[in-house]
Amino acid sequence: MFQYNQKVLFKHCDPAGIVFYPRYFEMLNDTVEEFFDSELGQSFSQIHQTASIPTVQMNATFSAPSRLGDKLVINLEVCRIGRSSADLDFKTYCEEQLRFSANSTLVYVDTNGKPNSWPDSLRRALQTRLQGED
Amino acid sequence: MFQYNQKVLFKHCDPAGIVFYPRYFEMLNDTVEEFFDSELGQSFSQIHQTASIPTVQMNATFSAPSRLGDKLVINLEVCRIGRSSADLDFKTYCEEQLRFSANSTLVYVDTNGKPNSWPDSLRRALQTRLQGED
Amino acid sequence: MFQYNQKVLFKHCDPAGIVFYPRYFEMLNDTVEEFFDSELGQSFSQIHQTASIPTVQMNATFSAPSRLGDKLVINLEVCRIGRSSADLDFKTYCEEQLRFSANSTLVYVDTNGKPNSWPDSLRRALQTRLQGED
Amino acid sequence: MFQYNQKVLFKHCDPAGIVFYPRYFEMLNDTVEEFFDSELGQSFSQIHQTASIPTVQMNATFSAPSRLGDKLVINLEVCRIGRSSADLDFKTYCEEQLRFSANSTLVYVDTNGKPNSWPDSLRRALQTRLQGED
Repeated sequence: MFQYNQKVLFKHCDPAGIVFYPRYFEMLNDTVEEFFDSELGQSFSQIHQTASIPTVQMNATFSAPSRLGDKLVINLEVCRIGRSSADLDFKTYCEEQLRFSANSTLVYVDTNGKPNSWPDSLRRALQTRLQGED
Repeated sequence: MFQYNQKVLFKHCDPAGIVFYPRYFEMLNDTVEEFFDSELGQSFSQIHQTASIPTVQMNATFSAPSRLGDKLVINLEVCRIGRSSADLDFKTYCEEQLRFSANSTLVYVDTNGKPNSWPDSLRRALQTRLQGED
Repeated sequence: MFQYNQKVLFKHCDPAGIVFYPRYFEMLNDTVEEFFDSELGQSFSQIHQTASIPTVQMNATFSAPSRLGDKLVINLEVCRIGRSSADLDFKTYCEEQLRFSANSTLVYVDTNGKPNSWPDSLRRALQTRLQGED
Repeated sequence: MFQYNQKVLFKHCDPAGIVFYPRYFEMLNDTVEEFFDSELGQSFSQIHQTASIPTVQMNATFSAPSRLGDKLVINLEVCRIGRSSADLDFKTYCEEQLRFSANSTLVYVDTNGKPNSWPDSLRRALQTRLQGED
């Protein structure tokens, strides 16, 4: 399981003093980006020279609010790997408390937006992180 | 059905030249805000003096990418009204093409984040926009 | 003088209940984008096919805070047109009160980021909006 | 001098593949927030219980573009401390290359937005970081 630390910053919070939920999705994108870079060994800057990995589905449940200064830990797991897609699962905690959970589907596409098979190196890297495989 | 127009602006787009999906959620929030203000007659600035309406659930499917300059129309429908919650449905088109669909659950909470019954005026206003009632 | 209307939305505001200043710069970018599109007749989507217009300088003074629901009017004036650059001046009001003033310098660059002379059509359009010319 | 590391992430970049300049201002805000927390020993969450520190002036010069994956180092210096204000200076590098420089003025205000003298503890902490004092 991959973990990403994110303190709740001033920019994330709304007039009610809690995280504005579109900012949570930015955090998830940052988590995926760091996962590809440091865990899979393929940075977004490399990947985006010839491809892209748009999110085609996102489901999220926000179970408790997060406030300025909260230290969040975002846990990412790979649930499924398809020919050109992958399903990710996210659980975000502050200490013991679940703040939000989410799952998403990414698709590997060429520069015209057409789905492409995962390159072998990326597929192999993803495979080793598949839930239940580690 | 409530409609909100949103042109895809430079700030919405990522290095792949398409809308960065967290920006879509900002658009949905803007849509809800305008719906409450112009359709329900209750602005967010009024509501947030004594309450808040956080989003506790969000499911979204992005079926086709949107590009700089695209003229999006976001359709909002109220699907369900609970004691202190409401379910919304969103369908976003560019001309005839569906770009993304989403559904969310909002909860009416007091300034401490505790769910509260919808105030009568808000409930009545929501009720008249309930899908199938108009 | 070009005018752009922007209501202060929930997404713009910080935990102190006022506009988070990086959001003001997004508003200025939206204003420039709309100015190019509707006033100069050249949309950002057209321009960005072969060029880009990065901001190379920005000075801003925030004289009074803006709150959720405030109706801002952003006034844009062209102050100077160079070979490949232009200086813009912004004054933003809510009713009679100045909220912030800013000036920026844009540069017309090719897709490699190298400054290029303004295309004739753009230069002519900018010229007719030059302060003191209208 | 305080240093803040910020990798250029996907969310920061525009369709031209470079950092969208309002995102630079978010980075500066993050830098100030971390400076107050880790250097001055006063977190934004503590400060915002009774006060706020809005930015009232910001000047920035963007001298070279930044791209996805660039590792930026933001250097912050305190230049001047007034009764209720402070001037900050920022220089942002990627390796040896200056990417942008900026200076800003912050004001310490109460919850009604009225300027207040810096609390003694904050003033003393700021004073020890005043440029030329260390």
